[in-house]
Amino acid sequence: MKIDRKRLEGTIHELGRIGETPRGGLTRVALTDEDKRGRDFMVARMREAHLRVTVDQMGNIFGERAGSSPLPPVMMGSHVASVPTGGKYDGQLGVLCGLEVIRALDDHRVTTRHPVTLAIFTNEEGARFQPAMIASGVMAGKIALEDAYNARDRDGIRLVDELERIGYLGSEPCVPRAFRAYLELHIEQGPFLEEEGLSVGVVEGIVAISWSRLTIHGVQDHAGPTPMRIRHDALVAAAEVVAGVRGIATKIGGELVTTVGTLDVAPNIVNAIPGRVKLSIDVRDPKTETLDRARAMLDTVVKTACEREGVTYQLEHYWRVPSTPFDPDVVATVEHAAKAAGARYRRITSGAGHDAQYMAAIGPTGMIFVPSRDGRSHCEEEFTPMDDIEHGAQTLFLAALDLAGRA
Amino acid sequence: MKIDRKRLEGTIHELGRIGETPRGGLTRVALTDEDKRGRDFMVARMREAHLRVTVDQMGNIFGERAGSSPLPPVMMGSHVASVPTGGKYDGQLGVLCGLEVIRALDDHRVTTRHPVTLAIFTNEEGARFQPAMIASGVMAGKIALEDAYNARDRDGIRLVDELERIGYLGSEPCVPRAFRAYLELHIEQGPFLEEEGLSVGVVEGIVAISWSRLTIHGVQDHAGPTPMRIRHDALVAAAEVVAGVRGIATKIGGELVTTVGTLDVAPNIVNAIPGRVKLSIDVRDPKTETLDRARAMLDTVVKTACEREGVTYQLEHYWRVPSTPFDPDVVATVEHAAKAAGARYRRITSGAGHDAQYMAAIGPTGMIFVPSRDGRSHCEEEFTPMDDIEHGAQTLFLAALDLAGRA
Repeated sequence: MKIDRKRLEGTIHELGRIGETPRGGLTRVALTDEDKRGRDFMVARMREAHLRVTVDQMGNIFGERAGSSPLPPVMMGSHVASVPTGGKYDGQLGVLCGLEVIRALDDHRVTTRHPVTLAIFTNEEGARFQPAMIASGVMAGKIALEDAYNARDRDGIRLVDELERIGYLGSEPCVPRAFRAYLELHIEQGPFLEEEGLSVGVVEGIVAISWSRLTIHGVQDHAGPTPMRIRHDALVAAAEVVAGVRGIATKIGGELVTTVGTLDVAPNIVNAIPGRVKLSIDVRDPKTETLDRARAMLDTVVKTACEREGVTYQLEHYWRVPSTPFDPDVVATVEHAAKAAGARYRRITSGAGHDAQYMAAIGPTGMIFVPSRDGRSHCEEEFTPMDDIEHGAQTLFLAALDLAGRA
Repeated sequence: MKIDRKRLEGTIHELGRIGETPRGGLTRVALTDEDKRGRDFMVARMREAHLRVTVDQMGNIFGERAGSSPLPPVMMGSHVASVPTGGKYDGQLGVLCGLEVIRALDDHRVTTRHPVTLAIFTNEEGARFQPAMIASGVMAGKIALEDAYNARDRDGIRLVDELERIGYLGSEPCVPRAFRAYLELHIEQGPFLEEEGLSVGVVEGIVAISWSRLTIHGVQDHAGPTPMRIRHDALVAAAEVVAGVRGIATKIGGELVTTVGTLDVAPNIVNAIPGRVKLSIDVRDPKTETLDRARAMLDTVVKTACEREGVTYQLEHYWRVPSTPFDPDVVATVEHAAKAAGARYRRITSGAGHDAQYMAAIGPTGMIFVPSRDGRSHCEEEFTPMDDIEHGAQTLFLAALDLAGRA
């Protein structure tokens, strides 16, 4: 039994047109009009496949294909919202391969013992509302529903108000739900599979992640008549922090990655000495201990930089997820499926956070990676060859079928 | 004969309420609704004083008090638009002291030989439309009217469309006009007068100024699964540039000042490696040669930083004004007036650009500085004590009267 490559390719192109950028990327940011259109497209496809569609309090969408027994479902899922000027594969691919698995089960008139459910999670990226994976976080009981509802974007708009506006504020409780297994297919977003000529990554777990925010308060002043000796420039201190954050990765080495992704200057005009800078720091490592060591070094980097320039600061470590090992049995099932699908594969650790991270706290979870060209993602150039997608989707199909059991 | 301190204080408070920020500063950015209200306020005051009001093609406002002879006027002026979250003294004070001079001439029933004109210039700050001093630049023939009209703000809105929208797209040609002298009273925006306990600065000239813009193109990618070894982070290169720009001032020393005032990151999200950074570089020195030396060092700083990170860039030096010496006779007249006004004063060079810089290319020009508390400006804390303002306004009154001549 095989999935239908042509059909899958077709839905990838169809969904990819919603929020498509002129350069072939995707801007479909969480809970915008484009996200609503992406969701509507998926709900229509789910209804065509006769799935029972429900929406929970966080706007997560579930489409269930009934099983022969009253058992918890095998869930497959990911997200359809993107980062701004992102790509057409991140998230999308997991949802569309899940849809293809369900369509293939129908093609082959397979009845499974466990139901098979397709899930679409809200605001996985965290590009608009922080933190990332907020909706699976609420489901796993790691984030309070009220806090998630009150998350605000840069314009001060609340998540709950946007959920309501686009018509995806559901009534289903967003709480831990029983499942036989959660499977998420996703692009690797790193260079390893492509470098090694592999089609499938059998994901053993996810790195530990820490997000911090730093606000530096300098003294705003005129860039002309203010002599250098009396300056307290928030951006000069911030630049030293950016260099220091890079330096932490150089010093610790190994698989540690550190990134300053956002930096906002106020008043941000040519002839004013920056009075305030806000920036974000993202730190990741497979080992939670290494993450914590890096975070301690970050405290020193910030203190040193700000003292040197005579500026004050607030540093807030507001989100930390320890490393997440996936369920050994699910990982073994995925590996077996990859082999049966004829894919060249290897075991791998995910450097990116995924909803699977929180789902692993609720029940048996695993992931399937497919390669990213040049290791690139979160950009318009994001691309995965169709041969690899076919292998990944077939692996997902065989693993889901194995876990759901034939009736 | 004296100006009226109480009346002057009153108009400072009145105009200061238009665009006032909750913390007592001012946000009255060029050609916004607040700027329109500030202009309307001034035009009403000019009409009350029976001045003949005209508006030119760049929205510059002129109010002329007739003289006894058909001679070119003594002009006094400055600007009423502010930077965002700026202060109530920068620009405002020169316009309001000019108004007070005209009112005082009326009080004392003085007829002058030359007319006395109050001028308000458009977009002096350059916070919204670049370059700064764009309207006096057009008047001096240094900037083409068409280029000025097509200047766009961050939202892509053209200057000419905003001039029209707020009703200040005048018909008077914006070309060099004859004047007996141009006098601009302004806050020092630096620490020297206050440090030395002086009320008035007799400005001998303005420093040379250079503005550059830098765009760095890195490789946007996911902050998680992208190992450090394959990164090309535009913000890491930009941070090295910020540090290097500071370093240029440290190396050259003297009165050179260097500032990175704006920095914008794309896509500016927590979990994406910055793909593009744009930033501004402001360099100033009393000597044009030193300015050019600093600019050559900047080329090296940018090249080194970008090569190290493996990113590409465009560096554009888009605006340069050589140092501007003021007219020796006008400077001597201002100095004489400061002495006659009983002010403690000294000669000083301006570190900030002013419309006087371009006016000096048309005719005899001078400036009067009053102190800035803690040397601060372009911020809500901007403040000048009323005693100093009184001395400054009286100096302006006596200098203008001297230059205009009693009929």
